[in-house]
Amino acid sequence: MRHDPLVQALRAGTPRARVLAREDIPSGLLHDEAAGARHGQARALVLPTETPEVRETVRTCAQFGVPVVARGAGTGLSGGANAVDGCVLIGTERMNRVLEVDTDNQTAIVQPGVVNDDLKGLCAERGLWYPPDPASSAWSTIGGNVATNAGGICCVKYGVTRDYVLGIEAVVGDGTVVRLGGRTVKGVAGYDLLGLFVGSEGTLGVITEVTVRLRSRNSRPPVTVVGFFDSLTAAGEAVVSVTASAATPAALELVDRHCLRAVEAWKRMGMDPNAAVLLLARSDAPADAAEEEARVLLDCFRSAGASWAERSTDPVEAEALFEARRLAYPALARLGPVLTEDVCVPRGHVPEMLAHIEEISAAWGTPVANIAHAGDGNLHPLIMTPGSDAVAMDRVHHVFDAIMDAAIALGGTVTGEHGIGLLKRDGMRREMSSAVLSLQRSVKQALDPQSRFNPGKLVP
Amino acid sequence: MRHDPLVQALRAGTPRARVLAREDIPSGLLHDEAAGARHGQARALVLPTETPEVRETVRTCAQFGVPVVARGAGTGLSGGANAVDGCVLIGTERMNRVLEVDTDNQTAIVQPGVVNDDLKGLCAERGLWYPPDPASSAWSTIGGNVATNAGGICCVKYGVTRDYVLGIEAVVGDGTVVRLGGRTVKGVAGYDLLGLFVGSEGTLGVITEVTVRLRSRNSRPPVTVVGFFDSLTAAGEAVVSVTASAATPAALELVDRHCLRAVEAWKRMGMDPNAAVLLLARSDAPADAAEEEARVLLDCFRSAGASWAERSTDPVEAEALFEARRLAYPALARLGPVLTEDVCVPRGHVPEMLAHIEEISAAWGTPVANIAHAGDGNLHPLIMTPGSDAVAMDRVHHVFDAIMDAAIALGGTVTGEHGIGLLKRDGMRREMSSAVLSLQRSVKQALDPQSRFNPGKLVP
Repeated sequence: MRHDPLVQALRAGTPRARVLAREDIPSGLLHDEAAGARHGQARALVLPTETPEVRETVRTCAQFGVPVVARGAGTGLSGGANAVDGCVLIGTERMNRVLEVDTDNQTAIVQPGVVNDDLKGLCAERGLWYPPDPASSAWSTIGGNVATNAGGICCVKYGVTRDYVLGIEAVVGDGTVVRLGGRTVKGVAGYDLLGLFVGSEGTLGVITEVTVRLRSRNSRPPVTVVGFFDSLTAAGEAVVSVTASAATPAALELVDRHCLRAVEAWKRMGMDPNAAVLLLARSDAPADAAEEEARVLLDCFRSAGASWAERSTDPVEAEALFEARRLAYPALARLGPVLTEDVCVPRGHVPEMLAHIEEISAAWGTPVANIAHAGDGNLHPLIMTPGSDAVAMDRVHHVFDAIMDAAIALGGTVTGEHGIGLLKRDGMRREMSSAVLSLQRSVKQALDPQSRFNPGKLVP
Repeated sequence: MRHDPLVQALRAGTPRARVLAREDIPSGLLHDEAAGARHGQARALVLPTETPEVRETVRTCAQFGVPVVARGAGTGLSGGANAVDGCVLIGTERMNRVLEVDTDNQTAIVQPGVVNDDLKGLCAERGLWYPPDPASSAWSTIGGNVATNAGGICCVKYGVTRDYVLGIEAVVGDGTVVRLGGRTVKGVAGYDLLGLFVGSEGTLGVITEVTVRLRSRNSRPPVTVVGFFDSLTAAGEAVVSVTASAATPAALELVDRHCLRAVEAWKRMGMDPNAAVLLLARSDAPADAAEEEARVLLDCFRSAGASWAERSTDPVEAEALFEARRLAYPALARLGPVLTEDVCVPRGHVPEMLAHIEEISAAWGTPVANIAHAGDGNLHPLIMTPGSDAVAMDRVHHVFDAIMDAAIALGGTVTGEHGIGLLKRDGMRREMSSAVLSLQRSVKQALDPQSRFNPGKLVP
């Protein structure tokens, strides 16, 4: 299909971009990291370097009546970036320039393919900080982070990607370039279209530029408080206690025994294999306040019944524990396929939700590991799939659904930060009323009437 | 018109609500506080106490084909709550119950008519804090604050209303009750319809319940830093210096000599009548960090050329200065009609924007006073209208437009926190491209296809 007229038209429209025909597209670029999400076969892959190339690509797709699927680094966990049959994939990997870092205004303007950690590094050199820190920050791009409204560990104090996006440029419709938001930290002119595009998973257009807000870099070393608990619910009670306290930790993460053992088996970090649950809290409050806050956190851990809890005095050890947290997912994935949940519940309900997960796991005889941005109520139960036979897979899907239903029953949501993509469309139907689903579809219909952008994703 | 069949139908549908016929509606309820914004004559006013009454009211309006205009306390400054001819006004003043304060989850659920300060007070009793603090907080309602995405003084550190709204209930369409968002602090299921409704000025539906996020109450007394400057631009340079510093002040407010003199003439607070500009900064950082931050702020003020700058050692005096800031607008309004701007520019451009305002004022021979949430780049130039003759009014409107254009040219917006309403529709046209205006209209058309809710507002 190198002589596909669509490919020829794409090449003619964007002489400087790379355009790959169907048979030349590496298969790894057809999907993201969501286990079990289907993907189709793209008809072409375009790798632009500038906005006009994206505009021309969308115009050509409009002429040929083919769908457009944008992708960043493909680290998503819900299938949002998966190719649909016959689509043109737009990869942003070559749109990777930081266009401006404005230290006076504490803002940066970047192309969508800039890697999160690369932006962080460049900001750090100027005494600035871009907070959003998804676990994928070493690979994932700002464009993808914006498209999914990515979260991470520091959200509990510093908020999610949405809180740092001041403006975007995007190609919409049949190839129109628009600017939404701007460079100001406040603004209420008209409907918040910027907020609507953040987290819209590429279904409303292709983001071609992002203006983000920065903070001053916090150069003080953080103070870490470590707690081990004998049960998930005791750890959950500690989370509630921290939420209701005056402390504002910069991290409050939970790692259960399944994860601790998987990390230990892999990396031999010397962690106690009998520990049931680890809670990690971190304070980055200024001056003496960090020590004061650490005492509050320690009190919360101990009063909730921690078997062992201390303020870490060894920065290397503290960093190793956070590293264990980061390694939990890949360590488990080494052992076999893992289906990742992303439920989020009101913070006061974290203990009940953890108890429900244990009950569901036991009822279906399927092990479920837990890592969690516990301070946000955002849990990542990891359903371990023991075999690929139909009976085992059936149980896994029952567990998946039961966990979503339990979260919804507690006033929660099926996705705190990974997005709907393909995997959570059924969950979205469970969570929302038919009237709200109808409003969701109205928005898609209004802003992408031809269903050009990432069709079949996000909206059930 | 007490026998208006619409009024009879409204009464039949909502037996417990108060329904006022056209001739019984107090004229003060037909508009908000925007000087110079036109309003029409409502056909009825409904004062419900519960969501079902709002739903039935909207259903009746749909049957009769009449528009619905919701209003809170009417403290808006852009005409957003003004009656349109033949509409049914829904006033939320009797929907004023706090339904829940959840200390574990740090959330509250309120009816839309709850007054901002009343919620603050109830939270304070439980050691909690609802931060958004518009100048109208003693009167304005949470529903109105959400509808306009209200800002205030503490936004510079703590964010705007949007940052505290977790969920809403609203009546949309022909009388359907929907819940958008929820009770979790994170969530990315589908498009951010919640964010779309926040700041939508009643044009998409009527908000009937709001779930807000709270913070722990900060019980430490804040530290205030006061600076006087000989020129607006010097004060602006101090603002840039603070923005680029590591300090995160909880307030950074500017008050110019016009305002200081007006307050002094009214309240006799003993302020220096020769001071050109006052900058007020406040740190509420924990423990010793507040003193450290105060030193940083003081350095910024002095290095920008403050004629006098000190950390306030007298809490009563410091509070009096903030009181002068709050009184600036009413003090000026006492002297004659004032047209209020609400431009917001990138923070690094505050000095240039202040210089432009002075130039425009001089060029048109029209005095312009300035108060500003300077730390956000959100300025409130107050155009003083010397007379009501056509020539004077013409000059005022030229100044109004020129200030908006100057802000747009600096990458700013025509409204940082007051909203579009009626007064800024032309400004929105100046600010946005025709493609973006078209997207704005598409959203309205998609979610309110009959143009039932607050027609003619927000969307030009």
